[in-house]
Amino acid sequence: MIKIVGIGPRREDMTIMAFKALEEAEVVIGYGGYTKQIKDLLEGKKVISLGMGQEVDRAELAIDYSRKGCRVVVISSGDPGVYGMANVLHQVMGKYSEIEIEVIPGVSAVNYSAALLGAPLHDFAVISLSDILTPLSEIERKIRAAVEADFVIAFYNPRSKRRTKPFQEALKILRKVRNPETSVGIVKTHENSSSVSIVSLDALKEEEVDMNTTLIVGNTFTYVDSDKMVTPRGYVLPHSTHPLACEFYEKYVSGEGNKGSNISCEYYPCHNHPQNCTFCYCPFYPCGDPSTGGRWIKEKKVWSCEGCNWIHQDDTVECIEAKLPKLLEKLEDLQDNKKELLKLRRECIYLTK
Amino acid sequence: MIKIVGIGPRREDMTIMAFKALEEAEVVIGYGGYTKQIKDLLEGKKVISLGMGQEVDRAELAIDYSRKGCRVVVISSGDPGVYGMANVLHQVMGKYSEIEIEVIPGVSAVNYSAALLGAPLHDFAVISLSDILTPLSEIERKIRAAVEADFVIAFYNPRSKRRTKPFQEALKILRKVRNPETSVGIVKTHENSSSVSIVSLDALKEEEVDMNTTLIVGNTFTYVDSDKMVTPRGYVLPHSTHPLACEFYEKYVSGEGNKGSNISCEYYPCHNHPQNCTFCYCPFYPCGDPSTGGRWIKEKKVWSCEGCNWIHQDDTVECIEAKLPKLLEKLEDLQDNKKELLKLRRECIYLTK
Repeated sequence: MIKIVGIGPRREDMTIMAFKALEEAEVVIGYGGYTKQIKDLLEGKKVISLGMGQEVDRAELAIDYSRKGCRVVVISSGDPGVYGMANVLHQVMGKYSEIEIEVIPGVSAVNYSAALLGAPLHDFAVISLSDILTPLSEIERKIRAAVEADFVIAFYNPRSKRRTKPFQEALKILRKVRNPETSVGIVKTHENSSSVSIVSLDALKEEEVDMNTTLIVGNTFTYVDSDKMVTPRGYVLPHSTHPLACEFYEKYVSGEGNKGSNISCEYYPCHNHPQNCTFCYCPFYPCGDPSTGGRWIKEKKVWSCEGCNWIHQDDTVECIEAKLPKLLEKLEDLQDNKKELLKLRRECIYLTK
Repeated sequence: MIKIVGIGPRREDMTIMAFKALEEAEVVIGYGGYTKQIKDLLEGKKVISLGMGQEVDRAELAIDYSRKGCRVVVISSGDPGVYGMANVLHQVMGKYSEIEIEVIPGVSAVNYSAALLGAPLHDFAVISLSDILTPLSEIERKIRAAVEADFVIAFYNPRSKRRTKPFQEALKILRKVRNPETSVGIVKTHENSSSVSIVSLDALKEEEVDMNTTLIVGNTFTYVDSDKMVTPRGYVLPHSTHPLACEFYEKYVSGEGNKGSNISCEYYPCHNHPQNCTFCYCPFYPCGDPSTGGRWIKEKKVWSCEGCNWIHQDDTVECIEAKLPKLLEKLEDLQDNKKELLKLRRECIYLTK
């Protein structure tokens, strides 16, 4: 039996199952850096450390020892199923009959890095920028698809001293499509410590990124608050509708609302001239999502839209009005249909931001 | 301090850090199903179980207890950063100042399911099919992008009794673009046990999929061997070139090779008529990748191309010849340039298969 064990990024991230498999192992095979990392767990075992690039040799050795009747563990950092030893062992296994393999999953770099950054993930794509085995055209195709569809993207193996082109291409594609303000989380791991930083896409420096870095690029909704990178999922935050908003939407649903700029209003322009005042009060209030410029006034727990101009753009209003009549037939729908309203907000942000 | 802890899919997948956080906790907040799952670890603690849909309430409660000075743990199954409690807590945190949150990552369903299936992951996309908070248009856009770019795709929350449309749409998009033979891994988890099956895309039945299912859809290269789902990464398998292949490529590199069908050959058609014989011997042998029809003759460790017609398609030959001259200038390049040759194979499979 061969167990392929994920030892996680840090010792504390190792699972019970990984510890147990290592405890029971007679032979442990892995990249030298990883066997060193868990040296204290390997006393009395046969330990075989092989270098980078010797993945197939590791797999053949593991099969060899297993056929001799040994309990073999092959280790990978993080999760062995994510660019780890699981794939190569399963492929080499094809030559033989009756090889038993069990994969012990682990915490992968995307999960570890996301945890350190805050909560940057929603739907996400994981892409390795190593073009050693994968053609650059394939890597570029995947980056383009993920960037255009607005996935959060985790980049593994982004850049080595000699391998710089894939990351340059990734940056080109990202900068062409995504907003320059898009948040990028940078997590660098060295032995048992990590450094974490969050920058905007336009401030991301190539030289800051190396092979020990995992990058997480946010989507359109990702924001930074109190040094944490957060991608909101769109939960409804309970709130009672303000009497003035009630008054406004009573008129709106009866078709008596104002359209376009309301220059006669004594507060015009409350944001920037020109502004579309169709939604003088925002139908999504409080979205609780700073990605369009709003923010919490901390401790007062009041959501301030002062910094958000998005609702006053013409294209935003057009996008919202195309679907709003179905969702907002009466005043109560502002509360009762809030989930659907927030989904409409998501749709229109993607189309207009 | 609030710790958001991933309890993994199974008890054995829990990390040291997760155990430690639970041990130190005074108040533990979670969805009822999850607090029940770790009941034995919660003795003597204040346990607050809330239902589905009460995510914001859980977050507010956690903040409340933490401000009272309690050590609070909020639990998520799998990894809290992947459709778990990390995002909602970080969003609700925005209302308050000086809330300290730490995320303890865990093994997420994609990693756990991949481990049970074998080694199905390469570059991958994780998409939730729940349209409760995300507009269907956004989900469809992401599926389309991931399917077209040939990502391996993990679907979370694929289908509930009432929520069936997103999965139907996903199937439609998959079947329109991907080969009907594409492997799909189905992992169903119930309490502490899981059932695993692998089907082809055209045999995937809607009713087989529920909320406790994680689906992993393979890419163009994914194959099934000994009941395991494997996506090869393209490692070079050591092999000496056969003397007849040497003879063939001596001619080929000197420009004396045969082009197109070689009807005068006594073995023609060794595969199917019509066949392009330009690469009578495959320049990628042994690719060790069954996705084009080859297979290992087990224990003899001989790679058989009998079932692979791909190299004899006209479009394949055209794709390969466009780039081969640079990679194969002399016979030795068959061995020395094998990595680059296998990358060319990947490129052409995507374009022709």
